[in-house]
Amino acid sequence: MEKFNIMLKGRTPKESYTVTTEQVLPDDTNPLNTLFGGRLLQWIDITAGISAHRHSSRICVTASINNVSFNIPVKLGDIVTLESKVSRTFNTSIEVFTDVWVEDRLTARKSKCNEAILTFVALDQHGKPVPVQPVIPESEEEKKRYEGALRRRQLSLILGGRMKPDEATELKALFGK
Amino acid sequence: MEKFNIMLKGRTPKESYTVTTEQVLPDDTNPLNTLFGGRLLQWIDITAGISAHRHSSRICVTASINNVSFNIPVKLGDIVTLESKVSRTFNTSIEVFTDVWVEDRLTARKSKCNEAILTFVALDQHGKPVPVQPVIPESEEEKKRYEGALRRRQLSLILGGRMKPDEATELKALFGK
Amino acid sequence: MEKFNIMLKGRTPKESYTVTTEQVLPDDTNPLNTLFGGRLLQWIDITAGISAHRHSSRICVTASINNVSFNIPVKLGDIVTLESKVSRTFNTSIEVFTDVWVEDRLTARKSKCNEAILTFVALDQHGKPVPVQPVIPESEEEKKRYEGALRRRQLSLILGGRMKPDEATELKALFGK
Amino acid sequence: MEKFNIMLKGRTPKESYTVTTEQVLPDDTNPLNTLFGGRLLQWIDITAGISAHRHSSRICVTASINNVSFNIPVKLGDIVTLESKVSRTFNTSIEVFTDVWVEDRLTARKSKCNEAILTFVALDQHGKPVPVQPVIPESEEEKKRYEGALRRRQLSLILGGRMKPDEATELKALFGK
Amino acid sequence: MEKFNIMLKGRTPKESYTVTTEQVLPDDTNPLNTLFGGRLLQWIDITAGISAHRHSSRICVTASINNVSFNIPVKLGDIVTLESKVSRTFNTSIEVFTDVWVEDRLTARKSKCNEAILTFVALDQHGKPVPVQPVIPESEEEKKRYEGALRRRQLSLILGGRMKPDEATELKALFGK
Amino acid sequence: MEKFNIMLKGRTPKESYTVTTEQVLPDDTNPLNTLFGGRLLQWIDITAGISAHRHSSRICVTASINNVSFNIPVKLGDIVTLESKVSRTFNTSIEVFTDVWVEDRLTARKSKCNEAILTFVALDQHGKPVPVQPVIPESEEEKKRYEGALRRRQLSLILGGRMKPDEATELKALFGK
Repeated sequence: MEKFNIMLKGRTPKESYTVTTEQVLPDDTNPLNTLFGGRLLQWIDITAGISAHRHSSRICVTASINNVSFNIPVKLGDIVTLESKVSRTFNTSIEVFTDVWVEDRLTARKSKCNEAILTFVALDQHGKPVPVQPVIPESEEEKKRYEGALRRRQLSLILGGRMKPDEATELKALFGK
Repeated sequence: MEKFNIMLKGRTPKESYTVTTEQVLPDDTNPLNTLFGGRLLQWIDITAGISAHRHSSRICVTASINNVSFNIPVKLGDIVTLESKVSRTFNTSIEVFTDVWVEDRLTARKSKCNEAILTFVALDQHGKPVPVQPVIPESEEEKKRYEGALRRRQLSLILGGRMKPDEATELKALFGK
Repeated sequence: MEKFNIMLKGRTPKESYTVTTEQVLPDDTNPLNTLFGGRLLQWIDITAGISAHRHSSRICVTASINNVSFNIPVKLGDIVTLESKVSRTFNTSIEVFTDVWVEDRLTARKSKCNEAILTFVALDQHGKPVPVQPVIPESEEEKKRYEGALRRRQLSLILGGRMKPDEATELKALFGK
Repeated sequence: MEKFNIMLKGRTPKESYTVTTEQVLPDDTNPLNTLFGGRLLQWIDITAGISAHRHSSRICVTASINNVSFNIPVKLGDIVTLESKVSRTFNTSIEVFTDVWVEDRLTARKSKCNEAILTFVALDQHGKPVPVQPVIPESEEEKKRYEGALRRRQLSLILGGRMKPDEATELKALFGK
Repeated sequence: MEKFNIMLKGRTPKESYTVTTEQVLPDDTNPLNTLFGGRLLQWIDITAGISAHRHSSRICVTASINNVSFNIPVKLGDIVTLESKVSRTFNTSIEVFTDVWVEDRLTARKSKCNEAILTFVALDQHGKPVPVQPVIPESEEEKKRYEGALRRRQLSLILGGRMKPDEATELKALFGK
Repeated sequence: MEKFNIMLKGRTPKESYTVTTEQVLPDDTNPLNTLFGGRLLQWIDITAGISAHRHSSRICVTASINNVSFNIPVKLGDIVTLESKVSRTFNTSIEVFTDVWVEDRLTARKSKCNEAILTFVALDQHGKPVPVQPVIPESEEEKKRYEGALRRRQLSLILGGRMKPDEATELKALFGK
């Protein structure tokens, strides 16, 4: 019963909101003494996966990482905060945004150093993909990310060779005349 | 002298070719007993970074991960091979393709389970970005990836808000009329 | 100037509030397939240390762990949330509470599985202990923990042989006639 | 038969004596290049758990960490020795002392840098707590730690809200008139 | 059918050839900032184990490490390549050579820094040792290593007390009159 | 002065005796749920390196691993004890024996599961090899290992191509007529 309602009503991004805070230890650095990219990706994958799980109440596996950019080098000893929220779902797949912030040691002011977009697939107990409830965006940013998800999905299907550029109506509207 | 020639002549993808082979240990798995996404991303980042380094003879840091898709679940005990090659460079940035293969234990036949595209920036000894030599693609696949790099770069600039869709001539040609 | 004010005014526990969310992976378990105690302690130490840092704007090192109890076994795949807040300071030392919650996969209901109390020392750039600003408790729980800190400090000094039971006025009031 | 005798006779602390020696590697350090507190806690938990296991011949899980103090910073490259012994048991719970020593590189003289007290619970094959044999202290220090265990247990029960200060006869004798 | 042929025909060392490339991160170093020996041994064991697996299509466990010498210190940031090939088999045991190369950052010239010889045992699905197909050496070096394997095996049996020096005909020929 | 005496008098194996106790956690296992060979090698290398350090009061780096055999599979949850002692020195190099024991959970009886022989080089503060004091063997086993060290050294020099079989007088005596 309760489940039916969940499926009907969907969940807000706030309900899948997940925060993680890490301090960069020597174990996490590259030879330049800055945060090693592979370690940050590991943190992002875990945090985003928990958001997908919280949205779907299902075991979720990473389906793709659509875009992660590393803008600011993060130094040894820096404090890093990762914030994930589900942005939109498509049948069995779940798009998650992870924002990464680095914190100034003295002023405690946070600067955004990364933004990652990942897609997860929710699985049932036999490891088969299973439909998930929709997302109900609330804030302005959540709505914007919800809107953009369709464009990103078309892009991803084209890049993966599973959609023809011609069928990507959202993208045609963006780039075409 | 030698350096000058390197800059002029560029390097082939074969010169930056990097292979890594891993066996999935319990330490690398998620609660489903399959390879944990964050660990695979770590392996991809290291392998691709070595390709960028081999192409540029410079310290390279991860600038972005443009697309990684996880097609096949990789199981505990499976043997995974990662192959990276530089596909194209743009001034100080280096695009690298990493192909990930999983190997059937009995037949030793490899199936491609992931394809990742990463961008690195080459740094000089003061940590400043530094121009790198061009890529000279040789095989058909290398040429195709070299061609596509410009489209991917425009996409990435648009997604990062640093280019307007209107200026992305390559993409307009693809989607627009 | 600003610093002077900080010292005078103190900081609220909310300002040092730190959250971390982890999913228990095989790498984190003991032979019973539950979360390995040593790994949880590592997570607690990092999270609490970030709280101490956020309160003091200083590098902080662990001085003691006063009490951690493990009430509920945490299973492979469970989602664990750690929340830390500074409870009180004494000259150069900072007491931090870390509450650990485990989340039911289906209902998302959180149960408290651990409560840890740690003490950190703030260091200046030469590695010498340095005084920190006081704590201004706001909520009922923050006030209760602030009050209790003096008792815990006396206990810790007695256990460490640096105070005689006779001098522990707070504790005498508790146990004595 | 043999088991019966074990239960009757108890075991000496010497029988659960466990030693571990580690060298502090970069992987174990914090941004100050000293041993990271979380890593030391992990080593303590493993060593103490082996002592509990050796005393009880049972699988043991950490129940609480009562007190750990970090007196001396341990530097990169230092050699650290951990020594654990069971100090006393209470029905299904086992108290373990772990002494941590750091070794001077030249003189090989050891200084005590930590002392930790942990409690474990012994489990049967169904994961249920199971009674363990008593401890027979031999040396002066073992006897002193055995005596103090009752006080520490009362303290722990009070801190955990499972005993009223009024009922803690051992502590009342210590602090009260 | 196919299996029968494999057993009959054997496999070339090229068929078990396995490459791994690693960059030395802070996590991999000792207090001298060079590659920690234990980490290199871990990389060698994984790579060689994959070669044994590729030769035998069986799960293989390490039986012994006959000789590893560390000739050149490997520095933080260096790129290390490990190449493994099966050199010879004896009934259920598989000898593997792993050559380790370190790469000059500027010239990309590789120097051999280690050579390791390991022995693995192939197991069937019940964990019992199982015979493996022979090796067909092709290159000069492969033939030389194939020849030497018998001597090394006799040595290893003598060192392990399972053969008398007198029976070691290969070694007698080498050292004796 | 003191140093002079140390050089003159040498040290007994007991003075470099180093013990480490580990419990096999999931993090340490291979896909068969037994202790992963690479992890055991890491533990052996650390323990043996501490023995070399204790003998020489110098920083020591691994020079070679002469022989390690894995006789008994070690299972998840097993308790493993490693004991290292210096067996002999040659100018700047130090030979260390590490015996590895696995402990029966119920009877606490230990079985020897590995024996490893490693060689380290002692370095001065500039990273240059430096002579170390001799070893004074006491027990029967220590004397036997001391005697065998010369044979093993000749073997290692021959295997490394730095000695001709003809010059290995110790080995000739063993194998030759």
